[in-house]
Amino acid sequence: MRPRDLSPEEFRKYGYEVVDWIARYLDQTGEYPVAPRVQPGELVDALPASAPAEGEPMERILEDFDKLVVPAVNHWNHPRFHGYFSVSASGAGILGEMLAAALNVNGMLWKSCPAAVELEQVVMSWLRQWLGLPEEFFGIVHDTASTSTLHAIGAARAMADEGLREEGAAPGLVLYTSEHAHSSVEKGALALGLGRRNVRKIGVDGEYRMRPELLAAAIAADRAEGRRPFCVVSTVGTTSVTSVDPVAAVQEIAEGEGLWHHIDGAYGGVAAMLEENRWMLKGAERADSLVVNPHKWLFTPIDFSAFYCRRPDVLRKAYSLVPPYLASQENPRAVNLMDYRIPLGSRFRALKLWFVMRSFGYEKFCAVIRDHIAWAKELADVVAAHPLFEVAAPVPMSLVCFRLKAGDEASKALLEKVNESGEAFLSGNVLDARYVLRIAIGNLGTQREDVFRSWAAVRTLAEQG
Amino acid sequence: MRPRDLSPEEFRKYGYEVVDWIARYLDQTGEYPVAPRVQPGELVDALPASAPAEGEPMERILEDFDKLVVPAVNHWNHPRFHGYFSVSASGAGILGEMLAAALNVNGMLWKSCPAAVELEQVVMSWLRQWLGLPEEFFGIVHDTASTSTLHAIGAARAMADEGLREEGAAPGLVLYTSEHAHSSVEKGALALGLGRRNVRKIGVDGEYRMRPELLAAAIAADRAEGRRPFCVVSTVGTTSVTSVDPVAAVQEIAEGEGLWHHIDGAYGGVAAMLEENRWMLKGAERADSLVVNPHKWLFTPIDFSAFYCRRPDVLRKAYSLVPPYLASQENPRAVNLMDYRIPLGSRFRALKLWFVMRSFGYEKFCAVIRDHIAWAKELADVVAAHPLFEVAAPVPMSLVCFRLKAGDEASKALLEKVNESGEAFLSGNVLDARYVLRIAIGNLGTQREDVFRSWAAVRTLAEQG
Repeated sequence: MRPRDLSPEEFRKYGYEVVDWIARYLDQTGEYPVAPRVQPGELVDALPASAPAEGEPMERILEDFDKLVVPAVNHWNHPRFHGYFSVSASGAGILGEMLAAALNVNGMLWKSCPAAVELEQVVMSWLRQWLGLPEEFFGIVHDTASTSTLHAIGAARAMADEGLREEGAAPGLVLYTSEHAHSSVEKGALALGLGRRNVRKIGVDGEYRMRPELLAAAIAADRAEGRRPFCVVSTVGTTSVTSVDPVAAVQEIAEGEGLWHHIDGAYGGVAAMLEENRWMLKGAERADSLVVNPHKWLFTPIDFSAFYCRRPDVLRKAYSLVPPYLASQENPRAVNLMDYRIPLGSRFRALKLWFVMRSFGYEKFCAVIRDHIAWAKELADVVAAHPLFEVAAPVPMSLVCFRLKAGDEASKALLEKVNESGEAFLSGNVLDARYVLRIAIGNLGTQREDVFRSWAAVRTLAEQG
Repeated sequence: MRPRDLSPEEFRKYGYEVVDWIARYLDQTGEYPVAPRVQPGELVDALPASAPAEGEPMERILEDFDKLVVPAVNHWNHPRFHGYFSVSASGAGILGEMLAAALNVNGMLWKSCPAAVELEQVVMSWLRQWLGLPEEFFGIVHDTASTSTLHAIGAARAMADEGLREEGAAPGLVLYTSEHAHSSVEKGALALGLGRRNVRKIGVDGEYRMRPELLAAAIAADRAEGRRPFCVVSTVGTTSVTSVDPVAAVQEIAEGEGLWHHIDGAYGGVAAMLEENRWMLKGAERADSLVVNPHKWLFTPIDFSAFYCRRPDVLRKAYSLVPPYLASQENPRAVNLMDYRIPLGSRFRALKLWFVMRSFGYEKFCAVIRDHIAWAKELADVVAAHPLFEVAAPVPMSLVCFRLKAGDEASKALLEKVNESGEAFLSGNVLDARYVLRIAIGNLGTQREDVFRSWAAVRTLAEQG
């Protein structure tokens, strides 16, 4: 018996209640307004200014959750949530998270929890095979793609800069990425102290793909001025338009110039797992590192970012530091995760992906992703045919970017109206200096009719002016 | 209805099963061997080399969890788990995690989920009050203390180095910490490219506390040689011996020298919340930043690291980068978490701490921590009285460090024997160049009798030689 915690009977009672709540919620998320109708500060003001001195009954906590917290939730699990990139908490993933929370282990060392470390190796190997990457890619889980990419850039710097570990960073290192790369690339460089001036944003072609000849020219120009190119980040599925950089051409340049090549497939890497999209990752098998986020489009509750690296020795060089209180035996099969990353500890994240991959299987997974992509293409055609709208970019994956022909202000106002309606949730962007709306399709609960119900809301509000 | 996921009935069925499993597990964790009896690679070898093509029934997944995964788990929730620092998944915390997994929101922006952002502000304010810190401390949640400390050092650098953001890091910056600081401090400096040579490990007094006069001398020596002191990290509850650096004296030096003062209270900050331990954080109210981990000693499932910073403007300067696809309205009450950190997104971590703080309340929380500390002191007296053993360090919190008088090899062998017995799990360390065993008391399920049962296992194995 655990003193001073819920008794087994109490845990069972409230656990069942929470399970019932979740079952109902997942079934009926579509009946909530997608975005909440709250003002900034409303939830803060509704809650006590201080924690209680005496414990409160779980009934009251659950009641407040329902009455106060849920009305302030933006429902990422809603079938008509199309903002940013859509995500999904599958039932299987939630069950995995429940068990991970209860086991509450820390996977920093093999011996601190063999199950967490080895199951992470297993699911990362399974996922690696789905991605078509060869065995030499070492896999490790991070919270977000920002963290994965930070580790990639840090490792690239450790490889380029012999004195880094002992003396500190040398100046003059330059990183390359496309002008459509995710902000996490520049933020990683910023956080590591590379300086924004040393991040080159390479121009793109008509379909928003990095132009290899501009990359080569930029590298040459930097070399001519005495700077040291060390890393290039290409993207498979950009946040703006899901464009796919020419990975193989970038890889060729990276090899020729001795640059670390990191691939950001946080969202698009999942699409690339489909047979018909294998071309998207062609060349990746020779790259240095790659990130793909199962918590985006692989039905896994946030957070789970899968980071692969073909040079685990460089990760160790960059990040390993073993104090005596964390010393353990050397055994090539006993991986100590802390040697390959900045955070010492980690949750048992592998459990949820193991549940998801087994519960879905490759075929069902492909079927869902295929539908999302097909519906996005279908939606793009419908949008293009409407007299008030234009499609703003090609649709290689499941994101449709469009705008009102009436211009930026009208498009912005439309976005606000749609989100306020609660019918659907979209996000916006600026593309080619013009405002665009984004409809991202990626939730497990989204059906074709949801996509067109969202579109109906957009269209109707636009037609009403 | 969500297509291609578990139906509500299926989710309810398996959800109840998982709740039953957890209720039983929490009640009976003490009956498992603490550390698993597995060889490296055993779980990997027991699982299929590839993910299934077709989905598998949930029964089979749960069965494999029980049959294959659990036997490879090191039970951090075990009442006789005393390794590293002990942690706890309370029932309330697990319920919070279940709901967080289901909502599956991303708290990157206020508008991406007001509930996640505002509840984080609420619980971080509640915890700040328990810590006795003033209102100007801005709170944000990270995964681990490693990440919190990395952000602190990065912010310190941004304050010290005007050109950091645009030009990149200037050389010559020096960071100070005690020789007993956690490895995450040095790893943070390493990852940020400061170089190990620029990390000064200041000597300690007889109770393993940083000596302020040595800190002052080291700063003066560096200045004399043209280097630029920029940051000092003190520790409240070191990993080696839970010693408490003289925070106020360090703060005075930091202020005089213009250094950023970060306080690592990842474990010990929790002890400092007790009335009788308020002295431990005296001076912290003027420090620049502080980290404390509710996932260590505050009954909250991993991961939850609470990071406080008195200079949120510097965090923004170091980490804010807003691409057009993440732009949102300016409103002082609508905090955009991504502006203050490296990871863009984050789970709804606040929910579990909200459940825990409300379910326990301050008084029950103090009662448990007080017991842990009392039992540690009692155990230390018992160990000291045993002819084969000696206590290796003072016991200001809930960690007892001790060794066999017979020496390092005997102590090491004893640790292995204890851990192999499954009766208790300890970790080791090297202190003053001699091997020590650590018994950390911190699990919610640990009772006084568990502490002495663990000690009986240690003593008996030692007496058997």
